[in-house]
Amino acid sequence: MPEDFVVTPWEVRGKVDYDRLVEQFGTQRIDAALLDRIRRHTGELHPLLKRGLYFSHRDLNWVLDEYEKGHPFTLYTGRGPSSAMHLGHMIPFFFTAWLQKHFRAKAWIEITDDEKFLFRDFDTLEDATRVGRDNILDVIAAGFDPKLTRIFLDTEYIHHLYPMAMNVAKRITFSTARAVFGFDASNNLGQIFYTALQSVPCFLESVEQGHNVPCLIPCGIDQDPHFRVTRDIAESLGFYKPALIHNKMMPGLKGLDSKMSSSAPDTAIFVTDTEQQARTKIRDAFTGGRATVEEQRRLGANPYICSVFAYYTYLFAPQDEHLAEVERTCKSGERLCGDCKAELADHVVAFLGNHQERRERAKDRVEEFVVRD
Amino acid sequence: MPEDFVVTPWEVRGKVDYDRLVEQFGTQRIDAALLDRIRRHTGELHPLLKRGLYFSHRDLNWVLDEYEKGHPFTLYTGRGPSSAMHLGHMIPFFFTAWLQKHFRAKAWIEITDDEKFLFRDFDTLEDATRVGRDNILDVIAAGFDPKLTRIFLDTEYIHHLYPMAMNVAKRITFSTARAVFGFDASNNLGQIFYTALQSVPCFLESVEQGHNVPCLIPCGIDQDPHFRVTRDIAESLGFYKPALIHNKMMPGLKGLDSKMSSSAPDTAIFVTDTEQQARTKIRDAFTGGRATVEEQRRLGANPYICSVFAYYTYLFAPQDEHLAEVERTCKSGERLCGDCKAELADHVVAFLGNHQERRERAKDRVEEFVVRD
Repeated sequence: MPEDFVVTPWEVRGKVDYDRLVEQFGTQRIDAALLDRIRRHTGELHPLLKRGLYFSHRDLNWVLDEYEKGHPFTLYTGRGPSSAMHLGHMIPFFFTAWLQKHFRAKAWIEITDDEKFLFRDFDTLEDATRVGRDNILDVIAAGFDPKLTRIFLDTEYIHHLYPMAMNVAKRITFSTARAVFGFDASNNLGQIFYTALQSVPCFLESVEQGHNVPCLIPCGIDQDPHFRVTRDIAESLGFYKPALIHNKMMPGLKGLDSKMSSSAPDTAIFVTDTEQQARTKIRDAFTGGRATVEEQRRLGANPYICSVFAYYTYLFAPQDEHLAEVERTCKSGERLCGDCKAELADHVVAFLGNHQERRERAKDRVEEFVVRD
Repeated sequence: MPEDFVVTPWEVRGKVDYDRLVEQFGTQRIDAALLDRIRRHTGELHPLLKRGLYFSHRDLNWVLDEYEKGHPFTLYTGRGPSSAMHLGHMIPFFFTAWLQKHFRAKAWIEITDDEKFLFRDFDTLEDATRVGRDNILDVIAAGFDPKLTRIFLDTEYIHHLYPMAMNVAKRITFSTARAVFGFDASNNLGQIFYTALQSVPCFLESVEQGHNVPCLIPCGIDQDPHFRVTRDIAESLGFYKPALIHNKMMPGLKGLDSKMSSSAPDTAIFVTDTEQQARTKIRDAFTGGRATVEEQRRLGANPYICSVFAYYTYLFAPQDEHLAEVERTCKSGERLCGDCKAELADHVVAFLGNHQERRERAKDRVEEFVVRD
C-alpha cells in the first residue's frame, strides 16, 4: 500500500491519519476508561488529554498500576534544538510539567544538540549546542519544579550517557535501524548510532535510584520509533520497557494539514515573537470562514478546518465552556473570523508576554535545572 | 581474486602476504633512504625498524619534512583491552616510547574499552574498562615520559572525544564503513559508529595547541583501515591527515603463521606470565629444527620458519651481532634447539622480571599519565 503520509523522527510529510498511525505503530488509543483513571489522580484532566490531542500510548495502564502500588514513575522528554521554539515544540513541556506537578514525578529532559548537528540542521556542533542552551530557557519557562527536574545537553552530559549508550548500541543491528528509521547506506555513522543516545534517559532514574523505576515519555508520535527500539532491548538490560504517551502534531497557521516550520516563520507562532509579529501571523492565518461577512452571518463558518480554532483547542481556551462558546458562535455565524482572530491574538500576546518574562527569569535559574557532572 | 588472507582491525586470518597488503592498502614501503633519514635524527635505528618489522608507512616523509622545518609532531597509538597483554601487544608501545624519546614527541594513548565491549570481547562494559585500567600499567611500563604522555580510557575521556567524534561521524557514510570494514546489516550500531572514536585522538594535540600539529600513528597494519577513513575526512575538519608507521604482526609460538591468542595461552608469552609459564611455553615452541640431534649437527636448522628465531628478531636480540650469531650457529648446526630455547627463555624471563617490576611501580604512577578531565 503506497503511504500518503510519512511520520519519522526527522520527517512528517502528507496528511497524517492518526487512526492509521496507531495501527501502523501498534500503539494503544487513550480511551475514556484510561482518562477516568488519570482523573482519579489528577483531579482534573489537562485540556490536551480531554480533547484527544494526547491520543495514544504504550503501557500507560501499567505505569498507573505501579503508581497505585506505591511505585512512582519518572518522566522523560526532550528537545532537538532549533533556532526558535514554536508553540508546537512547547506542548510536550507544558504537558510533562503538568504530569510532574500532579504525580510529583522526577523529569529528565534531554537536549539533543548532537542529533541536530548530525541530521544537518546545523553546520557546526557548537551552533547546535549554543541554540540548545537557549532552548533550555524556554523549557524552564514551561513551569518545571527545579527539585524534580534534570535538564542536560547530550554533549555536556555525555560522560553519563555514553556507557549506557554502548550497552544499547550493542543490542541494535543496522538491520533493525534500517527497518525502523528507513536508513540506507547514505546515512552517516552518527545518524545511525544516534538512537542509542535517545534511549539512555529512559534508564537514568533507575540507575540513579539503584532499582528499577518505570519511565513515562510524553512526546510527539513522530518520536515513537526511537522508543520502539528502546522497548525491544530494555529488558535485556535489566530495565522496564519505557511507557509512552503521544500527542498529535499541532497544525501550522496555514490550515490543519499545514506544518509549523522554522524556515517559514509565518506558519507558526514562535515563543520569541513580538506582539506585532504574533498579531500579523494570526491575522493572516487560514480559517474556516466564508467568502463574505453576509454569507458567514447567514451560514456560519467551519471550525473543523480552521487553524485559528485549532489554536484555541490546543492551548488558548483551556476552559471547556470557553472553547464550546467559540465553536458554537463560529458555527452559528455570530462570530466573524476577524473578531475571532483578534481574540486569539490577545490570548497569544498575553501568553507570549508571560512566557518571555519567565524566559528572562530562567536565565538566572539555569543552574537549578541543568546537570553536567 | 579470492583472498587467502584477511586483515581487518578485528580479524587477521590466513598467511599474511605483507607485500600484497602494502599494495591492497595503498601504503608505502619503508625503504633504505627513509631509514637513513630517520637515523639522522635518532642516531641509531630501533631494531624493529632496522629489521623490517616496521615496514610500511603513510606520509612519514612529510612528517619528517615538517619536523626538519621546526614543526614537531605528536604520536598516537592505542590499545584494545584484553585480559592479558602478550609481547605482540607491547610492540607499538615499545616503539612509540622510542620515538617519543628521540623526537621529544607528545604521545596520546587511547584505551578502547568501548570498542572491545562492542566487538564482543567482553560481556560487560565495566569488565572492559577494568581490564583497560589494568593494561594501562603495562603501557606505562613500556617506558613513556609522563610529562609527554596522555593515556585515556574512551569511557572516561568521552566528554573530550564525543564532540569531535560527531564531526567525524557526520562525514562518514555507512556505505564507506561497509566498504572499508566489511560491515553488513548484522553489525550493531556501536560497531558501525566506533571508527569515529578511533579517529579523534589524531586531532587532540592540534585542538590542545590551537594550531595544526602533524600526528604520527605507530600501529599494527591491521589498524590501517580506521585511519584511511580518518585521512579521507581530516582536511575537511581543518586538520592534517594523520601519518602512519605500520608493524607486521609478531608471530605466535606455534610457527610463523600462527597467531598469538589470549584464548590459547601457550601460543604467546603474556607480560604477566611467571618464569615457569614462560619457560614451558618456549620449551614447547615450534622451531626450524631437525628430527634428530645428529641430523641437526650435520645439516643445520632453519631459522626462517622458526618461532624461536622470530622472538630473537623481534625483541630478544637487540644487538645485531647477537642476532647474526644466533642465525649463523642455527644454520651451521652448532646451535641446537634446546639450547637456543633455553637462551631465549633466559632473555624472556629477564624481560618479564623487569617488566613486572616496572608494572608494579606503575601502580603508583597512574595519575602522572592518565587524563580524565
